[in-house]
Amino acid sequence: MCTPQDNLNADYQLAQARLADAGLLIRLGVPGLYGLSGVFEGIVEAFEGLITRHSRALQPKVMRFPPAINRADYLRTTHIENFPDLLGSVHSFMGNEREHTRLLRQRDAGEEWTTALSPSQLMLTPAACYPLYPTVTGTLPANGLLVDLRSFVFRHEPSADPARMQFFRQREFVRLGSAEQALNHRDQWLALGQDIYRALGLDVRVVVANDPFFGRSGRIMAAAQTEQVLKYELVTMVASAQVPTAIASCNCHLDHFGESFGIHTVEGHIAHTSCIGFGLERTTLALLFKHGFDPNHWPNEVKNVLAL
Amino acid sequence: MCTPQDNLNADYQLAQARLADAGLLIRLGVPGLYGLSGVFEGIVEAFEGLITRHSRALQPKVMRFPPAINRADYLRTTHIENFPDLLGSVHSFMGNEREHTRLLRQRDAGEEWTTALSPSQLMLTPAACYPLYPTVTGTLPANGLLVDLRSFVFRHEPSADPARMQFFRQREFVRLGSAEQALNHRDQWLALGQDIYRALGLDVRVVVANDPFFGRSGRIMAAAQTEQVLKYELVTMVASAQVPTAIASCNCHLDHFGESFGIHTVEGHIAHTSCIGFGLERTTLALLFKHGFDPNHWPNEVKNVLAL
Repeated sequence: MCTPQDNLNADYQLAQARLADAGLLIRLGVPGLYGLSGVFEGIVEAFEGLITRHSRALQPKVMRFPPAINRADYLRTTHIENFPDLLGSVHSFMGNEREHTRLLRQRDAGEEWTTALSPSQLMLTPAACYPLYPTVTGTLPANGLLVDLRSFVFRHEPSADPARMQFFRQREFVRLGSAEQALNHRDQWLALGQDIYRALGLDVRVVVANDPFFGRSGRIMAAAQTEQVLKYELVTMVASAQVPTAIASCNCHLDHFGESFGIHTVEGHIAHTSCIGFGLERTTLALLFKHGFDPNHWPNEVKNVLAL
Repeated sequence: MCTPQDNLNADYQLAQARLADAGLLIRLGVPGLYGLSGVFEGIVEAFEGLITRHSRALQPKVMRFPPAINRADYLRTTHIENFPDLLGSVHSFMGNEREHTRLLRQRDAGEEWTTALSPSQLMLTPAACYPLYPTVTGTLPANGLLVDLRSFVFRHEPSADPARMQFFRQREFVRLGSAEQALNHRDQWLALGQDIYRALGLDVRVVVANDPFFGRSGRIMAAAQTEQVLKYELVTMVASAQVPTAIASCNCHLDHFGESFGIHTVEGHIAHTSCIGFGLERTTLALLFKHGFDPNHWPNEVKNVLAL
């Protein structure tokens, strides 16, 4: 008997194979790890250009972070409590030549050679806004802060779904300021995000969402997040027509990060934060499945909006 | 007494502080890990645009890879023999709730909680061309292959030198084909690279170089690489006027990767490979130290070349 999950996995395998056959995704032998073709990357860049044009009037501060953050800063967040199954810790070899020789011998014998490694000072970035907060500890400017981010982020969730990558890029706009400023930012971008996607011919729906908190206590966290209507996702059909996929999310963190990193408004309150994150690979996949695998043949309206 | 190394470190600290004060680099509390400002990233993008214009006539195949590679593919290279001190291994938590509770208790007690993690299927990318080779196992097209890559790469070498980042981006052009094609590619780009940098007002010098092989046997490898004149670097002064820094390198790998990954020419020979890699952050730093920290005030010729 075929379960719904079997059907879904069959959809994902088929979608992945179609993308690979078209040369858009290059499979690398690990679920959720892919190379991208020039055509794929061209769509990513065009979509980013569109987002940049929409954000320009808001004059965000542009900051770009690498795919890793300071381990000490990571441990000031609650990520390890809430999403331990998704984390990525960077380990390196810091031994001498003798220890190196032993490592190679272990590897040659098919033993676990990674026991010779030690944790480095780095953790992989769980979300594009994580590296930002420790850099703005203290008092914000009078009107708060609006930041434009783009980063590779890592989530250890191997999957057949081509839209669920282990490394992917988020373009984020983060607002730090009063509770009202944070909430307004989320709602402004929730509306703008829908406009942007609809202009691209994507049928997006807004759903109240929750993060994938770990374990039993995580289920309580998730329920609370949903009940407080803190997070919305923009969802559409991507690799399967059975279940929609989030291609962007708008999240109000209340004073969660402000508290963890000692960020205050000029009035002396703990800063509230919110963000919209556009999934660049997922948006590209949504466009490819909606309009076909050759952007040259996309509707002219869509090509015009993307300046393709 | 001040050693030459002390003097150099003082230069690096000063350069880092100047870049941070100007807002170009954002320090993240880990040596070699930085955020970049919008101005910095704008120069990276402009330089990439220039490289793209120069390469267009060659019609390279564009491929983009994430910052990690398949661990199994990594182990088919000699990286772990030659550069173990630079590697990055991605570890994740794959336990249940009970194990998670223990992990949190270890963390709270200040114990080493990372012992609860397991190696994932991923290693961080050591150089932009590593992920390419396993995807072209088999026989190359009749005329070989020319590939355009850009990737974040990781090297565990914490340093005060702002030009020595742990995560940085390489733009690479890789040639796979006959021995002659590989060598010609390296030499063609060695000349073109110099032209490009000189048009940007950078005083680059070509030096025969070697990779930083590990340990005693590594010194023999390095000497052999130098003796065979396989690798050139384009060097210029960046964060210190005492020692030049490589901002690009041109490397002929002979049949090293062709052999490891079973890549053949149509004639049935093991493919030779070569690449030029432009260091995007290093090139940007070289421009900033040469022309000043405000690109608006750079010489008009330089701005024109970069279409800034």
